[in-house]
Amino acid sequence: MTSNVYTKEEVMIMASNVYTKEELYSMKPQKWYPSEATEAGFLLGGIGTGNITLGSRGDLKDWEIFNRPGKGDFAQYNFFSIWAKEDGSEPVAKVLESKILPPYNHPLGYPSRAAVSGLPRMDHSRIKGEYPFAFLEFDDSKLPVDVSLEAFTPFIPLNEDDSGIPGALFRYKAVNRKKHPVEVTVAGSFINFAGYEGNGSFENMRFVQPGVNEYRQDSGLQGIYYSSPDLPADHLRNGSMAVLTNAGPEFVTHKATWLIGGWWDGIQDFWDDFSHDGKLEPESFTNATSSALGINDQLRIGSLGINRTLQPGEEAIFEFVLSWYFPNRVRNWDEDAPVNDGDELEMNYYGTLFQDAWDAGAYLLKNRERLEQGSRDFHRALFTSTLPDYVLDALASNITVLRSPTCFRIKDGTFLGFEGSLDKKGSCLGTCTHVWNYAQTLAFLFPKLEQSARIVEFELETDDQGEMDYRTNRVMGKPSFRVSAPFEVHPATDGQLGTIIRLYREWKISGDDAFLRRLWTKASKALDFAFDYWDSDGDFVLDSRQHNTYDIEFYGPNSLTNSIFYAALKAGAEMAEFVGDSEHAEKYRKAFEIGSKRMDALLWGGEYYVQVLDNVDEHRYQYGIGCLSDQLFGQMLAHVVGLGYILPEDHVKQAVASIFANNFKSNFDDHANTGRAFALNDEKGLVVCSWPKGGRPRLPFQYSPEVWTGIEYQVAAHLIYEGFIEEGMTIVKAVRERYDGYKRNPWSEIEAGNHYARSMASWALLLAFSGFKLDLGAGKMSFHPVINEDHFSTFWSNGKAWGIYKQHMDVQTSRPKWEIEVLYGSLEGVQVNES
Amino acid sequence: MTSNVYTKEEVMIMASNVYTKEELYSMKPQKWYPSEATEAGFLLGGIGTGNITLGSRGDLKDWEIFNRPGKGDFAQYNFFSIWAKEDGSEPVAKVLESKILPPYNHPLGYPSRAAVSGLPRMDHSRIKGEYPFAFLEFDDSKLPVDVSLEAFTPFIPLNEDDSGIPGALFRYKAVNRKKHPVEVTVAGSFINFAGYEGNGSFENMRFVQPGVNEYRQDSGLQGIYYSSPDLPADHLRNGSMAVLTNAGPEFVTHKATWLIGGWWDGIQDFWDDFSHDGKLEPESFTNATSSALGINDQLRIGSLGINRTLQPGEEAIFEFVLSWYFPNRVRNWDEDAPVNDGDELEMNYYGTLFQDAWDAGAYLLKNRERLEQGSRDFHRALFTSTLPDYVLDALASNITVLRSPTCFRIKDGTFLGFEGSLDKKGSCLGTCTHVWNYAQTLAFLFPKLEQSARIVEFELETDDQGEMDYRTNRVMGKPSFRVSAPFEVHPATDGQLGTIIRLYREWKISGDDAFLRRLWTKASKALDFAFDYWDSDGDFVLDSRQHNTYDIEFYGPNSLTNSIFYAALKAGAEMAEFVGDSEHAEKYRKAFEIGSKRMDALLWGGEYYVQVLDNVDEHRYQYGIGCLSDQLFGQMLAHVVGLGYILPEDHVKQAVASIFANNFKSNFDDHANTGRAFALNDEKGLVVCSWPKGGRPRLPFQYSPEVWTGIEYQVAAHLIYEGFIEEGMTIVKAVRERYDGYKRNPWSEIEAGNHYARSMASWALLLAFSGFKLDLGAGKMSFHPVINEDHFSTFWSNGKAWGIYKQHMDVQTSRPKWEIEVLYGSLEGVQVNES
Repeated sequence: MTSNVYTKEEVMIMASNVYTKEELYSMKPQKWYPSEATEAGFLLGGIGTGNITLGSRGDLKDWEIFNRPGKGDFAQYNFFSIWAKEDGSEPVAKVLESKILPPYNHPLGYPSRAAVSGLPRMDHSRIKGEYPFAFLEFDDSKLPVDVSLEAFTPFIPLNEDDSGIPGALFRYKAVNRKKHPVEVTVAGSFINFAGYEGNGSFENMRFVQPGVNEYRQDSGLQGIYYSSPDLPADHLRNGSMAVLTNAGPEFVTHKATWLIGGWWDGIQDFWDDFSHDGKLEPESFTNATSSALGINDQLRIGSLGINRTLQPGEEAIFEFVLSWYFPNRVRNWDEDAPVNDGDELEMNYYGTLFQDAWDAGAYLLKNRERLEQGSRDFHRALFTSTLPDYVLDALASNITVLRSPTCFRIKDGTFLGFEGSLDKKGSCLGTCTHVWNYAQTLAFLFPKLEQSARIVEFELETDDQGEMDYRTNRVMGKPSFRVSAPFEVHPATDGQLGTIIRLYREWKISGDDAFLRRLWTKASKALDFAFDYWDSDGDFVLDSRQHNTYDIEFYGPNSLTNSIFYAALKAGAEMAEFVGDSEHAEKYRKAFEIGSKRMDALLWGGEYYVQVLDNVDEHRYQYGIGCLSDQLFGQMLAHVVGLGYILPEDHVKQAVASIFANNFKSNFDDHANTGRAFALNDEKGLVVCSWPKGGRPRLPFQYSPEVWTGIEYQVAAHLIYEGFIEEGMTIVKAVRERYDGYKRNPWSEIEAGNHYARSMASWALLLAFSGFKLDLGAGKMSFHPVINEDHFSTFWSNGKAWGIYKQHMDVQTSRPKWEIEVLYGSLEGVQVNES
Repeated sequence: MTSNVYTKEEVMIMASNVYTKEELYSMKPQKWYPSEATEAGFLLGGIGTGNITLGSRGDLKDWEIFNRPGKGDFAQYNFFSIWAKEDGSEPVAKVLESKILPPYNHPLGYPSRAAVSGLPRMDHSRIKGEYPFAFLEFDDSKLPVDVSLEAFTPFIPLNEDDSGIPGALFRYKAVNRKKHPVEVTVAGSFINFAGYEGNGSFENMRFVQPGVNEYRQDSGLQGIYYSSPDLPADHLRNGSMAVLTNAGPEFVTHKATWLIGGWWDGIQDFWDDFSHDGKLEPESFTNATSSALGINDQLRIGSLGINRTLQPGEEAIFEFVLSWYFPNRVRNWDEDAPVNDGDELEMNYYGTLFQDAWDAGAYLLKNRERLEQGSRDFHRALFTSTLPDYVLDALASNITVLRSPTCFRIKDGTFLGFEGSLDKKGSCLGTCTHVWNYAQTLAFLFPKLEQSARIVEFELETDDQGEMDYRTNRVMGKPSFRVSAPFEVHPATDGQLGTIIRLYREWKISGDDAFLRRLWTKASKALDFAFDYWDSDGDFVLDSRQHNTYDIEFYGPNSLTNSIFYAALKAGAEMAEFVGDSEHAEKYRKAFEIGSKRMDALLWGGEYYVQVLDNVDEHRYQYGIGCLSDQLFGQMLAHVVGLGYILPEDHVKQAVASIFANNFKSNFDDHANTGRAFALNDEKGLVVCSWPKGGRPRLPFQYSPEVWTGIEYQVAAHLIYEGFIEEGMTIVKAVRERYDGYKRNPWSEIEAGNHYARSMASWALLLAFSGFKLDLGAGKMSFHPVINEDHFSTFWSNGKAWGIYKQHMDVQTSRPKWEIEVLYGSLEGVQVNES
């Protein structure tokens, strides 16, 4: 129960006991997840458009296109299928999914996670995700062709609109390995979801009214347009879908509307038709009488197929775009809030870009080459980096959050986010300042969207006394969160002060002085608020009731909130100076200098920073002399934005080493965690807090025994900034091992919800590894890689451009030589690696 | 696509290709399911009381005690835990569950399926179920004792009340394998569910008002009583729980109410207290201030522990009874129906037996010896049978249905059932005549309860024209199903005529002539209805629109409905004669003789019976010349009740052989099933219908490609009755292989819901294997075993008694010699194996 002052060497020995150097420095290709890794689900869809998930079996699952999360929401008749006939042999027809895997425990037999689960399927499959691309390969012993799939939704940093298309491209490839020609049809079948109101008993889909499916040929495109023409445009359930191709009419076969009937008439008729000859009859009809019972006659399902004949050895592409358009959302964070006649709805931003799903899909298909090139450039820049494979995985996989149901954009373009997504609802409203504090991905890839969050925070949510609501409810036209929450709300110290650092970050990334000037007055009020509200004795060390991201209040001086305070003060002083507010510049500089020194003197515990309280049990949920993983979060943020040290470097280095030494666990078998379990059994991870010196409060803050990926990433990045490279890498590897497709979804790190925003702290790893510094206003960008310096390559981005930075050792000079490739935008006026 | 007339030998060869004789005749002990078989969940609870499920990890899950199904309904703080300290060593504390297993995909980290998922757990476990007993064994490398568990709810055939106690007994056993004394505490912790209203956001439990927990010592019992004293007795959410022991106060430690606080204060305080010394402080309190947020302060959790010291080699028992009492249910099949002030509630029958949960638990504990002896007698009688192990499994496991949320009893004692249970709701209301038609278990184990279903059908649901509603809604004081259903309702031919055979069965089982006389008038009307309604041309072959268990209508003559008709007529004639209704006796006898011959002539297709229709596609959902697994269901029912052949024996034998030959599949990889998938991939099973001769209608009845265990069992039993023993065994083995704990729950066969009533067709296997015939009115019971005749043993039951029948070959006479053991009731006046 006693702690050492760990030396750097001691900490490094600890790290080396966890993984070998070979494991840590691994630069293998990204992992293939076999079909058995059924947790692995790759989200397709744009920013703020909702999603469809491609599962490890090739299944389309989690239909989250209805402006809310929908994990497990299945669409029984939405699937691709293949028919193939080798000359001289019997045809084979299969659903383009590998076999359904146990458990088969659905109480109605047809598992939620499978379309038409009784139809024949492929033997096996595997999926790989390299954001924004998903790759899928199938094996089958009976099909005469080899089949694979690429799927993606365009993703181009700095281009919000082209990264926000409500659709996805599916490119199936078939290769004829036989000695005879093989005729192949690949068909996509989809339910018309226009007017969809959710599922009723026995999981039958309910609709406002049945939709209408239409086969269309339009300017070189062929497809099926699914709509509900009689539904008013402003009806909450109004919307449309489309499946399109540009294969050419001569290769297209379709059945715009399956047989409409009771029971399972539609699929019986479709499958008979499809499996017979791979060609679809455009219409199906029967006048046979039906039965007394009979379900699902509101369903309108339509199929689009592409038919090609492959010579031996030949390969063929079957390319589809699936798009959707459900522009109307409730004007409320609560997706279940009732909508009464006359209530105003909110429109998704994508609703302003496109007329309907056909329009969106046609845009994607007509601009396919440019959109794909941009996406491939990003993919190449990121995945050719010489960072360890699991680090790239951590960077790329958590981009998903931005394009998951956790986030959305409203009509005026404002970007909003929950903290995460529960299965059927958003989790914790209002782009929470203290959670989003950790996220770096959006700020560096789509800085304009990140700026819109600052505008909401300062202009809408900060009052004239400088108190900021840490959740925005006003953006929905609703009363402030402070007023409307069903519990007492105290201002969040970490979140509010973090917005100052983030304003500084947005300014440095964009060089947008007008943006800074626009928000400065409110921002300075928000920073001033700390002096008045949290510093009870005026000594520039915050000490009063400090609500924070642990959903409780800390009392007394602690280094979590104070480190953020000093980073905010340092940023604030520089911003004040720039905008000519010398009074604030002086105030903040002085407070920083005095406060930071005082905090260090007050809270330095010899090994790490502690919380100082006379009686740690007077208030519940404190941590006292515990070792808090977040204790230097402010320092880490300062590094990200280039503010340098805000506390003595030696203490900082010792503290982060102590965090690793005390809080990283290689096994959780004997860990007594009374909170939520995010790491279990033989997993590895970093706990939120530990008490190596004893002194645990009777009721420490409730999350202390937990493991949060967002904290793990911020600590890992910080370790890297401080030179503990392998320690940082160890933590990152531990996180990603937990998300292995069997245990959890690699594309959804969880905390209070799936696709949790805090996980986007991972982007700081790229910044730390590349020693990236940026001040676009001053026209400066620089790199100081701390790994693979002699053969370094990384993606980089700023508010105007992005591309690849490469560095290798010049054998003649023995000094690094670098080159930069701009893949998007322009670096005009930006000096690289100068000064 | 052409079919053979399969000879008996050919069919037998087919069967022998599926399993070896060794596999078919296996008489191994019942299977242990390892913790990884997480689908395996054994239901505790009585008839009509709701359930708690013991999972393969030893976890208590699916808290279905609130008068509705609740699969996945978790109770985060309901768990047993163990503390053990070997002299001279550090103590070890664990939750008495084995480790949580992947996936760890809950969006809030704490998986629904685990209590306090972050606490240390046992290394491994395995579960075995031999109804009504569940056995669980744990492995752990750190605990100084070996731990196992027996759990059961008393189950005594013919004793409905003692088989309907709302509670369960948990008997943990610890064995000291160390060289020093070990002190052990086993504690059960439970949430007070009185006033529980379901879960709110973030899965927090909501209550009408917080309950009150009380430690009680009462007439040799110690325990915690959980109630909500201020809740009115007639409040829907009123109820109570109790955990009791008779270990003696000196061995009991308790904390009646955990620390009440925000967040997870209660579990933090409990675990600290428990893991410290294995003794609980009776009260926990803090006056530390809480935080602004704070959840779950309505929870009232209480723990009861038993503490014992074990000398080396010694074993100790830690015995708990957990009981519950939620007597009030909505008077509606729809559990979600709103309850307004003044609405009448229905009371569970168990509410009339007990005052509250303490009363129920105390009854169980005070009568433990007698109740357990009766349960063990049943267990011994069944599991010492010389039937194959998987047959015993099929018999015993499906008893679960009777004590699952599928079934309940209302205040007047009437037994009611859904068809099955969806995860959160009953599936298909009204003790559906056509589904329950297949079930035999209840009739033979609790004949009085089965009789109550006949009373409802004939007295409440049959109108003066003899039309019977196939679902009872009137029993809830609601309009008839015919009137209230949201779709057109036609009378169900199979269901309605089946009730006549079942009336006959109940009469034969009970010898209760008064019961027959009471219902005869209505029963004869119900049978007469067939002549008027379904026989359009008066030729005694039913031919008009015949709604049936496939939820559609058959048109024209078919052997499913007609075979039931002839069995009903034969039964009806005998019953009419007995009650002196000679007019009906004559009518039924004549109709049987003419109709049965005519049907045979009309429908015999050479290999099996078919449906005759001029145009099979004029109506949807017919089967025409298909091979229907249910084609001789009426004949099978006739065998069960001792009516003999109703069709020519040679045709019957040929037909059942053809069903096996055509409809049993050893692999489903290439099966194109457009319905619900109950058998997949490499599984084996019997499809509902096939078209070996072609002629499939364009839209055959929608369930035809499916696999239903209820049909599989009735066909298997029929095969055995007809001498195709191994074919029947093959089907049964295939079913039970599908329910292997990994794929599906062995204690919940599914069709349209979990715990599906049709699965209780399995009890017919026992009757068929033992050649059981019963006529209690005539005082006759006989056995003609068709397997292991020289060393046969079986459970038997009738309306007055049950026990064991044994038969072995007398070596001197070379003829079978039998003995009978009566374990319950009396066989006075009953002749065994006479004539």
